[in-house]
Amino acid sequence: MRTTGPTSRAALTLSPIGVIRSPHRDPGTTPIQPACAEGCRGEVEVFAAYAAGLDDVDGFSHVHLLYWLHLSGTPSMKVTPFLDDRPRGLFATRAPNRPNPLGLSVVRVIERRGRILVVEDLDALDGTPLFDIKPYVERFDVRTGTRGGWSDGVDDGTFRRRGARGGAAAPGAVAGRSSADTGVCAAEHAAPGAEETSPPDAGY
Amino acid sequence: MRTTGPTSRAALTLSPIGVIRSPHRDPGTTPIQPACAEGCRGEVEVFAAYAAGLDDVDGFSHVHLLYWLHLSGTPSMKVTPFLDDRPRGLFATRAPNRPNPLGLSVVRVIERRGRILVVEDLDALDGTPLFDIKPYVERFDVRTGTRGGWSDGVDDGTFRRRGARGGAAAPGAVAGRSSADTGVCAAEHAAPGAEETSPPDAGY
Repeated sequence: MRTTGPTSRAALTLSPIGVIRSPHRDPGTTPIQPACAEGCRGEVEVFAAYAAGLDDVDGFSHVHLLYWLHLSGTPSMKVTPFLDDRPRGLFATRAPNRPNPLGLSVVRVIERRGRILVVEDLDALDGTPLFDIKPYVERFDVRTGTRGGWSDGVDDGTFRRRGARGGAAAPGAVAGRSSADTGVCAAEHAAPGAEETSPPDAGY
Repeated sequence: MRTTGPTSRAALTLSPIGVIRSPHRDPGTTPIQPACAEGCRGEVEVFAAYAAGLDDVDGFSHVHLLYWLHLSGTPSMKVTPFLDDRPRGLFATRAPNRPNPLGLSVVRVIERRGRILVVEDLDALDGTPLFDIKPYVERFDVRTGTRGGWSDGVDDGTFRRRGARGGAAAPGAVAGRSSADTGVCAAEHAAPGAEETSPPDAGY
């Protein structure tokens, strides 16, 4: 296949547009994904220059956050996922230690207040530098009937127990969640058993 | 809410892990999203140091690509989406001109060959610098029953016509696509009517 542009390896620079305020302050007990972080509320604050870019965002029930995994470490091309017991190729996992430590989370939009977006189902750490916000659009973003590789072998109980990592209540299905389920983050969660812990360099 | 880390505005550096080879070479006729790029086949090539990270990726039918929108321009906090006729806040759109021009696409995995991943439903431009590959996991990534803000007012016909932008056949529902629909990219598409064109700084 032809290439029109140069195949560049040159480094590229990103500048944070804001910061994420979160109840999660310990990487070791932070839920591994928004689906394991139901009711975890936080604030996404954009710097003043970007405030007008938040207009219309609160019309969407969900947005993607793209951010810097600022407490991540050195990547390995093979990692054992939190949800699995075998080493897997890094790009077949959501492990935080990546060559470019970019985080991606789909969170629930609660409200916008000026240059702050209040969100729920937040799995990012407090103080996380924010790079971008993109609306979640079902016509763009939903794929069903997919194959999920090694993750298809993870049963729902393991997914809930290992995924929450003590930072949230055991989640149900996010899409079907009722409002009565909110507000449980870090309040009603059960301490994980010893069998649920993972090494600090584990992926998911 | 307290913050444990500094609220940093310092620039952060990313280095491409590979490059995307795509049939799309003209930003003006490139589909706006994978859902509008059915059958568009390309190759995701990672550099040799990252090849082992592709192990197990071909167990997944879909992956997220995170990349640099290398032909994007200066962002504005208000843009008129390709799919809409009114200015919207930038972060309520998927416009390519963003403070951090990070692209996000969910593409179909066809096969892995060494350090190449053959993919379909590709909407990225040829030569795009790649930052990350993350598996698409339904339990992590699907939200249904969402509100889609201004995009909820876009009818399916407009979505198909404006979204393809001449770079692919008019798409159907991605999830329900049959194998007979593949291979249409850039081969069977209809030229867009004048009413389907958008200014080069439009968003979507």
